[in-house]
Amino acid sequence: MTKLVIIGGSDAGISAALRAKEVDAQTEVSVIVADSFPNYSICGLPFYLSGEVPDWHSLAHRTADDIRAAGIHLLLNQTAQDIDANTHQVTVTTTHGQSQNIAYDRLLLATGATSIRPSIRGLDLPRVYTLHWMDDSFAVQKYLNTNAPRSAVIIGGGYIGVEMADALTVRGIAVTLIEHGPSVLKTVESSLGDILSAELQQHGVNVVNGVAIEELTQEGTQIRVKGSHGFSTETEMVLVAVGVRPVADLAASAKVETGIQGAIRVTRSMETNVADIYAAGDCVETWHRLLHHSTYLPLGTTTHKQGRVAGENMLGGQREFAGTLGTQVVKVFEKVAARTGLKDAEAASAGFDPLTVESTFWDHKVYYPGAHELRLRVTGDRKTGQLLGAQMVGHVQGEIAKRIDIFATALFHEMSIDALSDLDLSYTPPLSSPWDPVQMSAQAWQHHAQLLPSQTPVVERPASVV
Amino acid sequence: MTKLVIIGGSDAGISAALRAKEVDAQTEVSVIVADSFPNYSICGLPFYLSGEVPDWHSLAHRTADDIRAAGIHLLLNQTAQDIDANTHQVTVTTTHGQSQNIAYDRLLLATGATSIRPSIRGLDLPRVYTLHWMDDSFAVQKYLNTNAPRSAVIIGGGYIGVEMADALTVRGIAVTLIEHGPSVLKTVESSLGDILSAELQQHGVNVVNGVAIEELTQEGTQIRVKGSHGFSTETEMVLVAVGVRPVADLAASAKVETGIQGAIRVTRSMETNVADIYAAGDCVETWHRLLHHSTYLPLGTTTHKQGRVAGENMLGGQREFAGTLGTQVVKVFEKVAARTGLKDAEAASAGFDPLTVESTFWDHKVYYPGAHELRLRVTGDRKTGQLLGAQMVGHVQGEIAKRIDIFATALFHEMSIDALSDLDLSYTPPLSSPWDPVQMSAQAWQHHAQLLPSQTPVVERPASVV
Repeated sequence: MTKLVIIGGSDAGISAALRAKEVDAQTEVSVIVADSFPNYSICGLPFYLSGEVPDWHSLAHRTADDIRAAGIHLLLNQTAQDIDANTHQVTVTTTHGQSQNIAYDRLLLATGATSIRPSIRGLDLPRVYTLHWMDDSFAVQKYLNTNAPRSAVIIGGGYIGVEMADALTVRGIAVTLIEHGPSVLKTVESSLGDILSAELQQHGVNVVNGVAIEELTQEGTQIRVKGSHGFSTETEMVLVAVGVRPVADLAASAKVETGIQGAIRVTRSMETNVADIYAAGDCVETWHRLLHHSTYLPLGTTTHKQGRVAGENMLGGQREFAGTLGTQVVKVFEKVAARTGLKDAEAASAGFDPLTVESTFWDHKVYYPGAHELRLRVTGDRKTGQLLGAQMVGHVQGEIAKRIDIFATALFHEMSIDALSDLDLSYTPPLSSPWDPVQMSAQAWQHHAQLLPSQTPVVERPASVV
Repeated sequence: MTKLVIIGGSDAGISAALRAKEVDAQTEVSVIVADSFPNYSICGLPFYLSGEVPDWHSLAHRTADDIRAAGIHLLLNQTAQDIDANTHQVTVTTTHGQSQNIAYDRLLLATGATSIRPSIRGLDLPRVYTLHWMDDSFAVQKYLNTNAPRSAVIIGGGYIGVEMADALTVRGIAVTLIEHGPSVLKTVESSLGDILSAELQQHGVNVVNGVAIEELTQEGTQIRVKGSHGFSTETEMVLVAVGVRPVADLAASAKVETGIQGAIRVTRSMETNVADIYAAGDCVETWHRLLHHSTYLPLGTTTHKQGRVAGENMLGGQREFAGTLGTQVVKVFEKVAARTGLKDAEAASAGFDPLTVESTFWDHKVYYPGAHELRLRVTGDRKTGQLLGAQMVGHVQGEIAKRIDIFATALFHEMSIDALSDLDLSYTPPLSSPWDPVQMSAQAWQHHAQLLPSQTPVVERPASVV
């Protein structure tokens, strides 16, 4: 009977454990969890803090009891301190300092990621928060409930930044969102990021772009936030959301190789360089399906997939992680932004000859009430016509998440932009057009690819609303 | 300069004309249109009659002026009477009886379909309507506006039937919807059709299944509707919506071969058996991508695609119609039903060894407000694991149309059900789960395929809500 030990009880770890039990119910699977919150939806934290999710317990993908009912041993509030790869043992300590050794046949490192602490002076002041683990969110929630602040500064305009700007606004707090880049949500191009900015501002968020925060200082009951270009403002609380980095210290101690941004190196079978040690999730390098090399791109969807692959392979399976396309979506107030595949500049760096065409279509037939404009950017290779990526912004009811997934499914199969018109997609006037906007944007790309074989690579098409 | 003549100004004809002008702006393109309404959205008629689309003009995909601006000649209110394939001429008459011959180099038959008139006695009574062309809808609209009926019977529970039940209910009319089969919307399996029935009934529609209507008779100001099993009811108006048949009489006169249900036989290049005569849209047989043979499956999406292929090929292009998957979606009140690919019985008839698993998931993480149940049926081949089809019913905000399109894009590429878990689909808690319901339903299928290798082919899984 194979004995599996998994370090980390978040998405990758639990996915691996569940898959292993599914493949072989007799396998002994133990999961070492550093806190009391296995399998919590980290992506749900902003909605807990906004008040939309009143009870944090409901953030669990599964409860500890659900996990145990699947035959998985949970070692809660226990921290893996050391791995002995030769004797196949992990040393674990409890919060009370007790220590024990656990033997494994196969080990999975699913230690996740942690918030980056940027080089800003004053990050240790009270009322300055990051947000990655459950305990982080409890601290923020407690502060919000107790102090009812009227103002907040969020440093970082990525996913967590824009979602928290929404969440704190919903709670009646005046939010200043500061992004050092030229637009928020840099996962999409600035022309689409600007639509999100407008949405944030329309709901009262003060969006500041192009400012790098340098220093936080206490001024009475306020925090003074200072940045480049003479930026200065006062606030009652600060949330730092500038991204995450892999947690891989334990791996290093076992001579497990790390690479990009310190993430653990794995094969597409999720094996590390050390025999019988696998790794998956936010702590590992991720194979990119279009780039054909690894990147660091921590996403919950990827984490589940990698965990599932690892769980299968630790029991002798032959599954390979199919690779990420960087598919992402975020909702901010009434708008949704999504992307998949490569942006223009990413495609150019990867050696493609990209053309990007941006166009606007109605999300459904405009004669039916409630149509909204959908802004789409399609990137393809000029020489081969291959689809390389797509981005989209529009109304929350515009089925944007699953429209980007049509592109993602097409990218998975390395489709040409031309062939998108061949897809048999669904249509009814309240929900689409006979050519779905996905297909109309592909046709717009083809039109420009013919007209502009050697001109500027990015075409921002005037709103052509069909 | 190639001279194209197109008979029919609905979706296939106009798509072909536009594509031809796109491929070669110098081409002379003439479109013969039997009425004054080229390129109208027939799928929009129920929404015009419900009052949701106040002005019928807005139903035009493009106005006549838009079409003319693309350099296309429109011959409105002219009917093609005869084709001389030897001399390459079409005889056309106007509504005033004037006649002329028009020469062509390539001809496209895009004569569409017309409502089936079933063998029911009394169909010619006043206040008994069908609904396919603009003139049909004007007649119904005029009657509704003038007479403000309080009751209506709809014969036929297909797309038009259920949409019109919704539309007339919205107008305050008590609707009885009669479907001779065991459930409405037979394009999906009865377990999903029953969810739509419940939605119709909740909004006051009287849904009658299993009754074949036999006779309509006038009784004073009412129409008496009689059917099998002693069914009898009185109503002020009747709408007959039992499907369409191809319009192919003109084709026959030119010795153009017809086949399934009288539809015109075409190659995947949209060529008929007669030199220089092409055909596309609701009047032709349609290549099925999974069945690898032709069917009769008239849909607006297919029509646009076939028209585009024909427009290109009439100018020497080499494009092939990629085939239909029968992807369809319909909205009824707050519910949406969609399908793509093959149903279980269709797959079995086609020689597959199908297993169908039905399961229920939330359309997004249930902790985020507004989650609704999504009911999914996945059909796959037991031997090869190939995805064969999917059906889905749920709330209008559940992104069902574009979720079925993920399946449609997967089917296009003949994916296995197993590989669906490899797709990098988008996720944010308000819109999905880390495994999209598409993937969770695929995993449910796999689970049952392993457990039940030789049992009943259809598994109705109890609501497993994750």
